[in-house]
Amino acid sequence: MTRPANRSLGLSDRRSDGAQGQSRGGASAADRWLLSTMMDALPRCGFAAMLWDGTTLGEQTGLRVIFRDRGALWQVARNPLVRFGDLYSAGRIEVEGDLVLFLERLYRAMAAGRRGRRSAWWWLWQDQRPRAGSLTTARENIHHHYNLGNDFYRLWLDGEAMQYTCAYYPAPGMTLEAAQHAKMDHVCRKLRLRPGQRVIEAGFGWGGFALHMARHYGVSVRAYNISSEQVRYARAWAAREGLAERIEFVEDDYRNIRGHCDAFVSVGMLEHVGVENYAALGNVIGRCLSANGLGLIHSIGRNAPGRMNGWIERRIFPGAYPPSLGEMMQIFEPLRFSVLDVENLRLHYAQTLRDWRARYTANLGTIRAMYDESFARAWDLYLAGSVAAFNTGSLQLYQVVFARGTNNAVPTTRSHLYA
Amino acid sequence: MTRPANRSLGLSDRRSDGAQGQSRGGASAADRWLLSTMMDALPRCGFAAMLWDGTTLGEQTGLRVIFRDRGALWQVARNPLVRFGDLYSAGRIEVEGDLVLFLERLYRAMAAGRRGRRSAWWWLWQDQRPRAGSLTTARENIHHHYNLGNDFYRLWLDGEAMQYTCAYYPAPGMTLEAAQHAKMDHVCRKLRLRPGQRVIEAGFGWGGFALHMARHYGVSVRAYNISSEQVRYARAWAAREGLAERIEFVEDDYRNIRGHCDAFVSVGMLEHVGVENYAALGNVIGRCLSANGLGLIHSIGRNAPGRMNGWIERRIFPGAYPPSLGEMMQIFEPLRFSVLDVENLRLHYAQTLRDWRARYTANLGTIRAMYDESFARAWDLYLAGSVAAFNTGSLQLYQVVFARGTNNAVPTTRSHLYA
Repeated sequence: MTRPANRSLGLSDRRSDGAQGQSRGGASAADRWLLSTMMDALPRCGFAAMLWDGTTLGEQTGLRVIFRDRGALWQVARNPLVRFGDLYSAGRIEVEGDLVLFLERLYRAMAAGRRGRRSAWWWLWQDQRPRAGSLTTARENIHHHYNLGNDFYRLWLDGEAMQYTCAYYPAPGMTLEAAQHAKMDHVCRKLRLRPGQRVIEAGFGWGGFALHMARHYGVSVRAYNISSEQVRYARAWAAREGLAERIEFVEDDYRNIRGHCDAFVSVGMLEHVGVENYAALGNVIGRCLSANGLGLIHSIGRNAPGRMNGWIERRIFPGAYPPSLGEMMQIFEPLRFSVLDVENLRLHYAQTLRDWRARYTANLGTIRAMYDESFARAWDLYLAGSVAAFNTGSLQLYQVVFARGTNNAVPTTRSHLYA
Repeated sequence: MTRPANRSLGLSDRRSDGAQGQSRGGASAADRWLLSTMMDALPRCGFAAMLWDGTTLGEQTGLRVIFRDRGALWQVARNPLVRFGDLYSAGRIEVEGDLVLFLERLYRAMAAGRRGRRSAWWWLWQDQRPRAGSLTTARENIHHHYNLGNDFYRLWLDGEAMQYTCAYYPAPGMTLEAAQHAKMDHVCRKLRLRPGQRVIEAGFGWGGFALHMARHYGVSVRAYNISSEQVRYARAWAAREGLAERIEFVEDDYRNIRGHCDAFVSVGMLEHVGVENYAALGNVIGRCLSANGLGLIHSIGRNAPGRMNGWIERRIFPGAYPPSLGEMMQIFEPLRFSVLDVENLRLHYAQTLRDWRARYTANLGTIRAMYDESFARAWDLYLAGSVAAFNTGSLQLYQVVFARGTNNAVPTTRSHLYA
């Protein structure tokens, strides 16, 4: 592992906006009109909003968002989905009180307000289209997110399997480590893994799940990932554990997957694939999966087609797109795969993210030293916003089990998952 | 209950086709060419085909399809999906050996052959479009199928709950009665029914599931059905059981459902709804379901969009259309319902249909006396063909559990289904 160079998110506007200087004075009538328009669009929002001069609107609930300068206010009004995150990261917007609770109330009020569409504010917004996913942009996007440095992720992911995906908490009070272990077992049971089987894994993260399958289920794994830093990490890890003979970590794109398998599994890759490539992914699976094999795709999703939050899509996860279940069917239907089982683990992801954020917060000093304050604030906002998104139902987590349409060796009940 | 008038399926061609008389003689060169073309299109079909003069092609496996006259051969070649069933019903096509096994091999060979498309035969076919589902045609279609007479269905459905939908066999060797009981409990557990809750049921058959919910789960039910004969039956049944106070059987279309409920359930109605009405069904549910309510739709489906077998769609189930899972999402996505759980019970339906057919076969004499020979053969073919369709994977059975996107009171695991 290499210690990554100090990185920022490329936010150039921290303390550098001319508007900020001007707004040391009082808010103008126009500023107050804009704040009032925005707050009117958020019915029963459950928080207050304050300008740089102390002007305050909204409800006194212990939650308060503060615009530190005029530029911050007007930029958020124009493009809130992207600029809120940037300005929060730069410290030009601050939130007093519980950040997750504020964001949950904000999301709910925005959803209610947009349904009503009574405010002119909704028509000011600029939204963005998701980017397409060519092989080159796929590599760039993945590099952006996953090559931040293994040391960074190790500060707040589980300490055993380095799982950067939704955990599974079948019992209350489980630790993150136990819940990630339970998630991996849940997936392995859904795939009915047996010793000697061949597994293909599309997108392997740091390799923790491949190791789990090889160690606990006696299978051999061929796993693909395009993040060079993760590939190096996974290979070294497998060698240390004496499992290198049974796991082949390939640095390549899922579209180049070759070979045959008894189980095809992908945990947390589909978010980076893009709907336009789902048919290609289906063809890859169609080429690989044995006649009686089972497959599982685990992915963040949505209740209806829609874009990822623009700030996350630009600053945190370039190219990310969580599909609706209907969109996911574009993987399976062209090849007439049979969908056997879909489980929605949305509230488990909210808990996973709460656990991650607690560790992240405990390590804030280290993270500030590794990167900078705006990076530390950006990732905290990302984690808090993700808790809120799963908790308010704007994001889902789908596990989809499938088989060839002609496979009659499928499990007839799911009781083996709960034995 | 009224004893239905003797009914036929409107097949006018039994022993009435002029071609039949002509074909008492030997098969011509053209007849043999056509048979050969058809059999070439069905690679490794695993059965033989014989003409009226003894000309035989294919494999000697104990399974043989026999064309009794020239007209039967040429009509099947032109429109096999519809005419095979009509001619089989009329006795002009016969099958020696196990009918289900023959149909399974036929379906598999047709699927393999059509993928290859090496035969001119595939281009001769006439397929049909499904009919649209206005309120009037919906009533006509349902009348056609369900008003055949309660006495008819009672001869071969389970004797306790009169369930004309897929049963659930969690253990081997279960009786049909036990499996239908298990299916109803499985659905009630998925809905987490509790005493005092209000349930709306869309499409209630003979009322057996509504009675089960009221009796065993202490809920009140408002249930809708447009088959007048089923409505009368259900009301009388509820009165006999002393449950009339807690179940309201309404003779009306699902689009006219009114009221509020803690659980919305529909078992075996969606097949008759038509994709063009899924958004309307979603709106009905959106109007009825409480903030923390759960819903379940149980329906025959397909791995990819496609039409119902043309003969079944014309002769047995007018207007029936089993959707793909992607098509089903047109119910849920417009209102941003959250899909929590999908289970595919395809092989359970194959077993249900085997159980139904065994009872049907045991009562063939009664059925012939109630209707006629062609009706008896048609329904036997329908049951046998349905076993084959579920067993070969051309039909699926989906149970989809859903909730409002903002409902956080949903079950977090499915372990309660298997406790």
